[in-house]
Amino acid sequence: MPIDTAPYRVQPGDKVKLKSWPTAVKALYRSDDDYERQLGAQVERLSELQNLLYAHNRYSLLLVFQAMDAAGKDSIIKHVMSGVNPQGCQVFSFKHPSALELDHDFLWRTTQSLPERGRIGIFNRSYYEEVLIVRVHPEILAAQSLPEETPRGNKLWAQRYESINQLEQHLHRNGTRVLKFFLHLSQEEQRQRFLARLDDPAKNWKFSAADLDERELWPQYMQAYRDMLEATSSKQAPWYVVPADDKRNARLIVSQVVVDALAGLKMSYPKPSLDEADLADVRKRLAV
Amino acid sequence: MPIDTAPYRVQPGDKVKLKSWPTAVKALYRSDDDYERQLGAQVERLSELQNLLYAHNRYSLLLVFQAMDAAGKDSIIKHVMSGVNPQGCQVFSFKHPSALELDHDFLWRTTQSLPERGRIGIFNRSYYEEVLIVRVHPEILAAQSLPEETPRGNKLWAQRYESINQLEQHLHRNGTRVLKFFLHLSQEEQRQRFLARLDDPAKNWKFSAADLDERELWPQYMQAYRDMLEATSSKQAPWYVVPADDKRNARLIVSQVVVDALAGLKMSYPKPSLDEADLADVRKRLAV
Repeated sequence: MPIDTAPYRVQPGDKVKLKSWPTAVKALYRSDDDYERQLGAQVERLSELQNLLYAHNRYSLLLVFQAMDAAGKDSIIKHVMSGVNPQGCQVFSFKHPSALELDHDFLWRTTQSLPERGRIGIFNRSYYEEVLIVRVHPEILAAQSLPEETPRGNKLWAQRYESINQLEQHLHRNGTRVLKFFLHLSQEEQRQRFLARLDDPAKNWKFSAADLDERELWPQYMQAYRDMLEATSSKQAPWYVVPADDKRNARLIVSQVVVDALAGLKMSYPKPSLDEADLADVRKRLAV
Repeated sequence: MPIDTAPYRVQPGDKVKLKSWPTAVKALYRSDDDYERQLGAQVERLSELQNLLYAHNRYSLLLVFQAMDAAGKDSIIKHVMSGVNPQGCQVFSFKHPSALELDHDFLWRTTQSLPERGRIGIFNRSYYEEVLIVRVHPEILAAQSLPEETPRGNKLWAQRYESINQLEQHLHRNGTRVLKFFLHLSQEEQRQRFLARLDDPAKNWKFSAADLDERELWPQYMQAYRDMLEATSSKQAPWYVVPADDKRNARLIVSQVVVDALAGLKMSYPKPSLDEADLADVRKRLAV
């Protein structure tokens, strides 16, 4: 039976008290084997649907992932998307913007990486950083050299939410389906994962002292996430708050949302351009 | 005395009967010499203002040119902008979109060429082609592979106007000032210019038989221009309908609009980072 993802979806108009949204839910799998079987089936279904998306060539899919450090963005992308043909799937990670990017409006740099028709595009972090880290760190905003008359404070964030909503509406109309995932991690689980990283040579390169600075800004980040979720979860481009303390649960939920979205599109393989007589002719020419 | 450009500006809510908007007005110059003097003064002023725009580094300027063939887009860009430092000024001409561009939403390809902070960007044709040539030639729209449920006809153009207005509002908020020029040519003047092109080896390469096909669609184009002007001339990103039968008048009007827009921005050169003592020290170190 498919996982019911409705409880994780933020409805337009919802008040989002993140403290009452769970970071952990009951396991959605009965055993290790059951988890592997479920995820495997989803990845296979996803791979078939992506093939159809590519052939139908009228839609594209944009998946946006946002989260605090160590919430498992990279691992979800790896585990859910690894069965998909990379020719039809592109992942972009957005870190520090370049000088050229800073010299444009805040939506410019991600626009270049939007998925082409027929493709799945994945944003590991995204333009939403512009209302998250930029909000929590005012010095980043100062470096953006906005005109002096541009409002600052809440009015600026409201304008950015509006620009983002309008962009996503525009994309939807033109065939891009947008799904957004906030991986919701508890502060305690982050602590455990940071500690685990320190002890694991395959992981401790991922840790930097700056991660601790961000951790200390947890309440500011939660406020920024809450406001973002309330302002930008639309019918056409919804946010999902995914409980992320159990990575396997998170992967199953995300894969279900993506499969449901693709399966809900009216798609078909294009009709062959050759009729029976043509095909016979082609077979004849290839018979030599 | 500066030229009064208000009569050429389309106000939001205006009904635009293009037949009653002039393609020719009384000469804005008294003689050849007077024209040269006026244009020279404007270009010089523009060059100074562009220098300030570059140094101030909080605004950018986007100039959009749209017109029927032979209306003088290229020559206006050449004559008005030739005195400006090319380091701060980029011209992009948009012709047939590439396969990659067609695989994205209709605003994608021009977005990449938007001017950086401190620069003047010039679009010789633009995203407005998407509500002009694409509207007049339904087969171009068909090639855009939009989802089947996307509306066609008037509702589609209304959605495109909305997307464009929202984009330009977003750009304005983030420091880009947008000015749009429709070079308004009479059909008779186009005929004369086409004939002149045929006789001039320096110009006849510019002529193709397809230009005549478009000329025969004149009424359809005028309807598309009219609807576009009515729907997308906003306070923040206005359209100017520039009488273009006299190229010199057109150049003077366009240069005046651009100079006025730049002069209206509150800009200043950044304060030097060195104080008097620092400067003295630098002078000493450079004295060797």
